[in-house]
Order: sequence, then structure tokens, then C-alpha cells
Amino acid sequence: MSSAATRPTGPDDLWSVDEHLEDILSTVRPLEPIELQLLDAQGCVLVEDVTVPVSLPPFDNSSMDGYAVRVADVEGAGEEFPAVLDVVGDVAAGTADLVHVGPGQAARIMTGAPLPPGAEAVVPVEWTDGGLGEGPVSGMRARSLAPEGAEGQVRVHRPVEARAHVRDKGSDVKAGDRALEAGTILGPPQIALLAAIGRGTVRVRPRPRVVVLSTGSELVQPGEELAGGQIYDSNSFALTAAARDAGAIAYRVGAVADDTDTLRSAIEDQLVRADLLVTTGGVSVGAYDVVKEALSYAGDEDEAGGGVEFRKLAMQPGKPQGFGSIGPDHTPLLALPGNPVSSYVSFELFVRPAIRTLMGLTDVHRPRTRARLEADKALRSPKGRRQFLRGAYADGEVTLVGGTGSHLIAALAHADALIVVPEDVESVEPGAEVEVVLLG
Amino acid sequence: MSSAATRPTGPDDLWSVDEHLEDILSTVRPLEPIELQLLDAQGCVLVEDVTVPVSLPPFDNSSMDGYAVRVADVEGAGEEFPAVLDVVGDVAAGTADLVHVGPGQAARIMTGAPLPPGAEAVVPVEWTDGGLGEGPVSGMRARSLAPEGAEGQVRVHRPVEARAHVRDKGSDVKAGDRALEAGTILGPPQIALLAAIGRGTVRVRPRPRVVVLSTGSELVQPGEELAGGQIYDSNSFALTAAARDAGAIAYRVGAVADDTDTLRSAIEDQLVRADLLVTTGGVSVGAYDVVKEALSYAGDEDEAGGGVEFRKLAMQPGKPQGFGSIGPDHTPLLALPGNPVSSYVSFELFVRPAIRTLMGLTDVHRPRTRARLEADKALRSPKGRRQFLRGAYADGEVTLVGGTGSHLIAALAHADALIVVPEDVESVEPGAEVEVVLLG
Repeated sequence: MSSAATRPTGPDDLWSVDEHLEDILSTVRPLEPIELQLLDAQGCVLVEDVTVPVSLPPFDNSSMDGYAVRVADVEGAGEEFPAVLDVVGDVAAGTADLVHVGPGQAARIMTGAPLPPGAEAVVPVEWTDGGLGEGPVSGMRARSLAPEGAEGQVRVHRPVEARAHVRDKGSDVKAGDRALEAGTILGPPQIALLAAIGRGTVRVRPRPRVVVLSTGSELVQPGEELAGGQIYDSNSFALTAAARDAGAIAYRVGAVADDTDTLRSAIEDQLVRADLLVTTGGVSVGAYDVVKEALSYAGDEDEAGGGVEFRKLAMQPGKPQGFGSIGPDHTPLLALPGNPVSSYVSFELFVRPAIRTLMGLTDVHRPRTRARLEADKALRSPKGRRQFLRGAYADGEVTLVGGTGSHLIAALAHADALIVVPEDVESVEPGAEVEVVLLG
Repeated sequence: MSSAATRPTGPDDLWSVDEHLEDILSTVRPLEPIELQLLDAQGCVLVEDVTVPVSLPPFDNSSMDGYAVRVADVEGAGEEFPAVLDVVGDVAAGTADLVHVGPGQAARIMTGAPLPPGAEAVVPVEWTDGGLGEGPVSGMRARSLAPEGAEGQVRVHRPVEARAHVRDKGSDVKAGDRALEAGTILGPPQIALLAAIGRGTVRVRPRPRVVVLSTGSELVQPGEELAGGQIYDSNSFALTAAARDAGAIAYRVGAVADDTDTLRSAIEDQLVRADLLVTTGGVSVGAYDVVKEALSYAGDEDEAGGGVEFRKLAMQPGKPQGFGSIGPDHTPLLALPGNPVSSYVSFELFVRPAIRTLMGLTDVHRPRTRARLEADKALRSPKGRRQFLRGAYADGEVTLVGGTGSHLIAALAHADALIVVPEDVESVEPGAEVEVVLLG
């Protein structure tokens, strides 16, 4: 990556892919953290170290359904000569009012219930007669059907050691331990731990709200009829889906006609719900390139449209790109080219890392690997441009899907990787090793 | 996998992990397909082959901003002796009313605009003087600022071949081609293609609605105060998050007290929004095991609670499990054990594949790999039980995280894999190769 000092300065200078990316990632800042309910924080990045307020488990408790006993009372017990104990009551999970287990006594106890005072260990119910006076049982009868199980006598067929089948207070985590570190991404097991230690809310960076607008007077909503010269808007659908996939809350505005006032007012309208704006189309060298026209004027920087810079990248597809910020909050805006494949590739290379930076993630890029090119003939690539071709990757090999045209959206739907051909390479032979971006 | 004929039959027979899984997967059926708006279908499985109704692009169009010309008019043109053509108007994207390009004429054309009648190729604007009468230009001036660009004369500095910079009608996909096959999972590029061919809605299997209930009178909502004998409910949070992660729309009901009437009515209440019910706790051999008590009675099969079978699995953690269906629609229900680690492991092994089966996916399981066990001492595992231990996997090695206790939820939050120890293995030495489930 180059530093800002070496960036292209003239309007026709080409920016490298890395220079453009570096400009974006050095500008976009992680969103301010907010306190969220646990399940609303799923997939978000924790911004605080979380300490355990109370030891887990919070009290000694039984790991089995059985009988809480004193060790001396069951010493030497066997099936032939069982220890016979008086059952003094039930200890169910959630019970606060505990019976006391004295010499010659047992309390019937359930998994997770506190070990009652006096008891030293738990005998699993399968090692007893369950109070029925016959052989070993496989379980207890339901309390509601057989309330007498909480009293009477129980025959214990095996001895236990002290603390047997008891989970010690604090054996999972202790009060004061660090449960999770700042920077942790909250998946289901982390949410489980936070809930277990009693955290109902947690401080995280929220998911960014990404607004997607496509531009073009030729665009028609899918499902409607095409008139002459019209095509269906696919970019706003593709990029809304891709933004969600990257972790954002995405809003699709849909297609805006090629008119600067309409576009400016559509963008200003959306600012209130945007942490990032993405537009497609209108960024090239034509006379109707409305995004460029609406946003590149040198206005007050506190005014919408003040700070977006349009540039050419040494890249194919995706040469024309815009990046900057707009509105009173300097909301970042990425203006992507309008060809469906160009906009999708641009999204993967620039918008996805921006979204993940807003989320506070450190790993913002798609994984890359190297693969052997499986092809009939050499790939051609223009000198001085980094080319991204659609490919299908499997087991260390990548196959070209479709051609190089930036309108080949059908091929994109059957690709799962981008083949990268560097700026200084004009031809890649079949069998050569290439860099591949895995689209997941 | 065993067939139903060889399944355990007695109440105390152990089921293998595979037998239980096979019972679930052979019972749960993919949800009935519904027609969804494109963006609502993200992540869903297509159930129809989708055919291209109209060729893409639907008309010959320009791939550049430039001038639509006749080839003979620019033959031999150079910067010193440019071809001088009369500009007869603009062709913007979305234009239906096209100018005709006659001999000696050119139309200014924008990327994506239809090639006007009479024209045979497009000359990029950078190969012309842009109508300004000076040297080559780098782009067009905006139509709104310089309307005169659509008339006057243009000097062309380079010749072009027929069809140069023209994207042919149907060069991406042709009407009648198959765009996507039934069974395709709809990600952003597939949504892009569907939109591009004009599909506003699509027929897919919907995301299953999964209702998660935890049971236990000891459970308190995180954020509240613990009284004696109480712990925080973590299962309902963990499994709701995990169900979403698997692709479901998940509803967390929260903790229900250990009372059969309360539980039955909570479940009946939820049936209306459930494609799958998941409970935790109350499935073991204790006297207060409310899920077992409420759902295992042999009632009418059209009545809630009619068809859930409780069984013991040759598995650790996760021995007690229930599976069946309830209510008038025979909604599938999985009853998981209540220990947090047991319920999470059970979810991964049984509920996640059930959710993905409901979605119509064919690849329903977590990926598995083999790894070298990195450990100080041998892992011990009970004979006859398949054990699942929490591990951290990286680069072909897996390290045990925490111990074997099913209450070690803190360790789970730092694991990203499950180490599988088969039923017939009682000890695994450090350095041995083990099977690993990647939790991703």
C-alpha cells in the first residue's frame, strides 16, 4: 500500500487498486459502540473486556439425578447389602429452601439442584432402588404422579467418594475472571457465556446501515415490462444482498433516474438512515454521468455532495470509481461503476472491507489462496491493469467461468472466486499458478 | 446409519448418535415452497429451474461512452488527419427514440445505450476531440452544462472495426437458456442474475421458523438478580443465536418453569409460529423432568404432546434426548438436555441438520476434518459413548479447550471445533489423529 503522499494527483492519473483501497480504509472509522440486548449483538464486535461478576456454577450442585448423601453412610454398600437411608425430602433445581441431610439420611436431588447442607456427595438414581424397595431403577417417577418418592427409605447399592457427582461452585468460571476480551465477535457460544454470567446487554459496535442506490434512466424494476432501450435494475438487488452478507443492515432504494436534482435529493433523503452510501452507475466519462455530476462539485464540505472524488483505477473491470463523504455527518459514500459485474467486483474489493471496518472487525478482506489455472488457452489481460476474472475454485484448481466482459452477469452467478491477474502480466498460461479471491 | 428396523426398542437401550440423527433426518421434510420477493429469498434454496425470458443484453448496446459511427467513415483516421463527422444527437442509456446515423454522421452515445440504426461501431470518446475542435479529450462534458455537445462536429482520431465496443444482444444469456437450476442457493450473484432477467419474485423453500424454549425453575433472565439455587438462562439465548446462524428465523420464548401444564400451554401457544420446536432441559431421569413428563404421554397423535419419544444416546455430553412431533400439523420437536454444553453440542449435531433439511439444503452438516491432537496428556473417554470435546483448531492441529464437564460453558466460548472420540476408543494419546467437527 502506498501512503497518501504518493497518491496520484492529476485527474487522469490512474490509481492502483491498493491506493484506492488504502484511501477508503484509512478514512472509514469503526462505528461508535452502543449497548445492545444480547441477541441483537449477534455477529457484532465486543468493545469491552467482560469480567465474570459471579462464579459459575454459583453454588455446589448435583451433576446427576439421584440422592444427596453423607459418604460414611454408604461406605461398603453393595447390591446384596445396600445402605438403607431415610429420605428427608426433595431438592429440585431452583430450590432455595434446602433440607438438611443428617447421619443415616438422604435427600432426593435433581441435576443442577444445590447440594443440601450435610450432604457430601450424590449417588446417581441408577445406583439405588429409587425408594421402591426392589432392584436398581433406571430413573425417578415424576413427582406429580408419585409424591411419595420424596419420603420413605432408599436403598443405595454402591458407595461414593466425597464430592462425587458434585459440580463445585466456581469450577467453570470464577468471579473476577475475564470471560471475553474486547474485540471478540459474538457468536452463539459467546452469547451463551454472556447470558450464563448474567449479562442481559453488552457494549458492541452496531451493524452498519448501508443504503444502496442504483442510477440509470434505462433501469426498470424486475417484474415490470421492458420498453425499448431499457434493462432491469440488478445492481441494487445484488449489492443490497451483498451488503447484508457482509454483516450490514442494508436498505435498497432502487433505481434513480439520470437527473442530478433527483439524485441529490434521493441521497439527502437517505442520509438519516445511512452509515455508508453505495451508488452504482454514472461515474464514467459520459455526458449523462449523474453521480459524478451531482457529487463532484466543489461545495461546502458540510453540504451534501461536498467531498466525493472521482478517479480512474488501474483495474478491469471497475476502472471508474468515486469515494468521499457527504452530508453534515460526513457519511462515507462509494460510487461504483454501473455494469453489473464491475459493480459486484468493486463491492467485493472496496465496499465489503469498508462495511467490515465500520463493524470494528480486523479481518476485513475475503480470504485469498493460490490455485492452478485450469483452461484451454492462455488468459489475456491488459498491461497496466489488475484484472479480476470470474472463476470456479475447487481443490487447488480454478476454472474461468464465462469471459472477460463486464456485462457477463450470468457467468458471475456460477462463479465462486475471482482470478487476479496482476498489472504487469499480459498472459497467463494454462497450468500456471494464479492468485484467487474466494467469494465464500 | 442403521435402518429403522435395527433401531433400539427397549426404553433403556442406548441409541447411537447416527441412529438418532437418521431418525430425525428421515422424519423432517423440507418446507413447502413459497413465492418470495427477491431480497426475501436470500440464502434460500430455489425449487424451480429458472429460464431466461428475454436475451441479455436485450439489444445491441455500447460498452463505452463515445460516438456511434459507420466503419467506412473512420477508415484510415489518425490524429493528424482525423475523420470529421456531423453529430446528429445523443443516445443516452434508456433512450427508446433513436437517431439514425447516416454516412458522414455520428451519434454521441453513452455506455449501455442502444446502438442506433445505421451505426456499426462505437469510437470511445478518448479517441476523439469530443466535439471541441482541439486534441483528444478524456471525457464528455455534462449534458446539462454543455448541451451543444449533442450537435456540431466531432473529429475521430482512430479507425474502428465493425461491432467494436458493441455488446451484442444475447451475448450474456439468450432467451430460453437456463439461468439457474432448482436446488441453487440464492446468494448475491444469483439474486443479481434473477433481477437482471426481470424476475421480481422467485419460488423457494422459506427459512424455517424455529421456536426455542428453555425449561427449569432455577432459570433467571440475564440482567436480573440471582436468588439462592438460581442460575441464569443461557440456553434459550445460545440456541436462538445458533438457529439463526443455521439459517432459521428464530424466536426465543425464554425459560419456562418446571410445571407440566405451564409447559404444555407454552408449547401449544407457540405452535402457530413454529416449523420446528426446540426445548432444553427436563429430559433426564429426575422427578421434575417436565419436558419428558409433559410430552411423552401416549395421547391422541393429533393432540399436542402426542408423539415425542425420549431416549438415551451413546453419547457424551448429550445422553438424554427427545424427538418427535406435536400438534395438529405434526410440528417436529427436538428436546435437548439442559446442561449448556450438552444442549449446544446436541444443537450442532441434531438441530442444525434438521433446520437445514427444512430449508431444502442437501449439505446439512458442519464440515469435518482430521487433525493431530495437541495435548499434554492422553484424553480419556468412556467406553461405548461417542464423546464430543471442545477444541481449538488451526492448521491441522486441534487443542483441547477446558475439560470434559458438560457445564464448562466458558470453555465453549473459546472453542471453534468439536473433537470426536469414537465409541470404542477409551484413550487418545497426544499426537494421535482425531476427527474434528469445525464449528466455523
